[in-house]
Amino acid sequence: MPDSQLPLSATERTRHRRLREQGRSERADLLAVLRAGFIAHLGVLADGVPMVVPTCYGLARDGRLLYLHGSVASQSLAQRRAPACVTVTLVDGLVLAPSVFEHAVNYRSAMIYGTLRVVDEPGEKLEGLRCLSEHLAPGQWDYARRPSRRELAATRLLALGLDEASVKVRTGPPDDGDSPDAALGLWAGELPLIACWGEPVPDPALRPGSVVPAHIAGRAGREAHC
Amino acid sequence: MPDSQLPLSATERTRHRRLREQGRSERADLLAVLRAGFIAHLGVLADGVPMVVPTCYGLARDGRLLYLHGSVASQSLAQRRAPACVTVTLVDGLVLAPSVFEHAVNYRSAMIYGTLRVVDEPGEKLEGLRCLSEHLAPGQWDYARRPSRRELAATRLLALGLDEASVKVRTGPPDDGDSPDAALGLWAGELPLIACWGEPVPDPALRPGSVVPAHIAGRAGREAHC
Repeated sequence: MPDSQLPLSATERTRHRRLREQGRSERADLLAVLRAGFIAHLGVLADGVPMVVPTCYGLARDGRLLYLHGSVASQSLAQRRAPACVTVTLVDGLVLAPSVFEHAVNYRSAMIYGTLRVVDEPGEKLEGLRCLSEHLAPGQWDYARRPSRRELAATRLLALGLDEASVKVRTGPPDDGDSPDAALGLWAGELPLIACWGEPVPDPALRPGSVVPAHIAGRAGREAHC
Repeated sequence: MPDSQLPLSATERTRHRRLREQGRSERADLLAVLRAGFIAHLGVLADGVPMVVPTCYGLARDGRLLYLHGSVASQSLAQRRAPACVTVTLVDGLVLAPSVFEHAVNYRSAMIYGTLRVVDEPGEKLEGLRCLSEHLAPGQWDYARRPSRRELAATRLLALGLDEASVKVRTGPPDDGDSPDAALGLWAGELPLIACWGEPVPDPALRPGSVVPAHIAGRAGREAHC
């Protein structure tokens, strides 16, 4: 069986209960959501209370690990192994039904449970930062100056295994089937939400005539979450 | 002092440490982020471990309360008052610098800490659902059929006070000032990310000739997060 068809975990907390029809169970579904997004919400405990921090991430080459920019969350994580939940959500549109009750959101979402590991080893740290950089801005790792030893030391990087995850996807029109609400004669359907990259805006400090490289210019006008 | 200029809380966990320059401290900044977003990431404890769930929300009329769709998170919340952190993040673009280290994301984010309350009283529940519905799809509360008593009972709604919050906003070009990296002659600037509403897609089950009402059709092509 190819790796991408391996089933995801089905622990009690990742088993799909409420929205069974939206649950996806293959590793390929998880990777597709992670590749399409670029901001994760990292949930950790701070003094016994949940804290949810937005942060950038990248996928390891073998698809078995998520690297996260440590940033603010690191305050609370220190060097110990902390239980975490990382959620990546892409909103694809609003589902408008004849009844308010049947309104919904079309989305793709991945929730990953695991134990955060602070990445200390310089080789892995550099590789993790490459994954993160290439995930956000493909081409910049080769174009821009790479981290110096001092910058590397000043960067906090976290790793999270992709062993326990839950993926949900909702697409399409309202789910109200043959409800009597159809007789109301109201419009129903989807209002799509589309995230696109805009035209690059040069840094005002740039020397005049600086050319936008193709790997950046080529993203303008393109959808961001596909 | 008008309400919108009231300072936000500054508890130890909402004090801006790392990104001092990005911290905002007025209630108006918090409300602006909440009005611009429409998906929150709700962090709660499930069996002592953080769980981060994406969910819809709406702002109470007086701007002092957030209503959240209970959905999946409710499993773990039961009827008790649960500590929570709700984060709303809008990504506005990528910040591309001459060095990988100075890369960043332009974003607006609000983190709210508090204790979740399950909304049980039917009057408040209906008003909360109105806030939620009007936040996501303005006009639908008056256009679509409102929740029946049975639908209301089947809906889980949570409330969270806006008393302890932290708001961060990053805008503009890279922050590397007079770094020697400028001599590298590399392009730097911002690649904006813009979320727009697309053209409404009618439900295939709709009777032919159904007209898209103005409050839906009027959103097509408009920016979603402003």
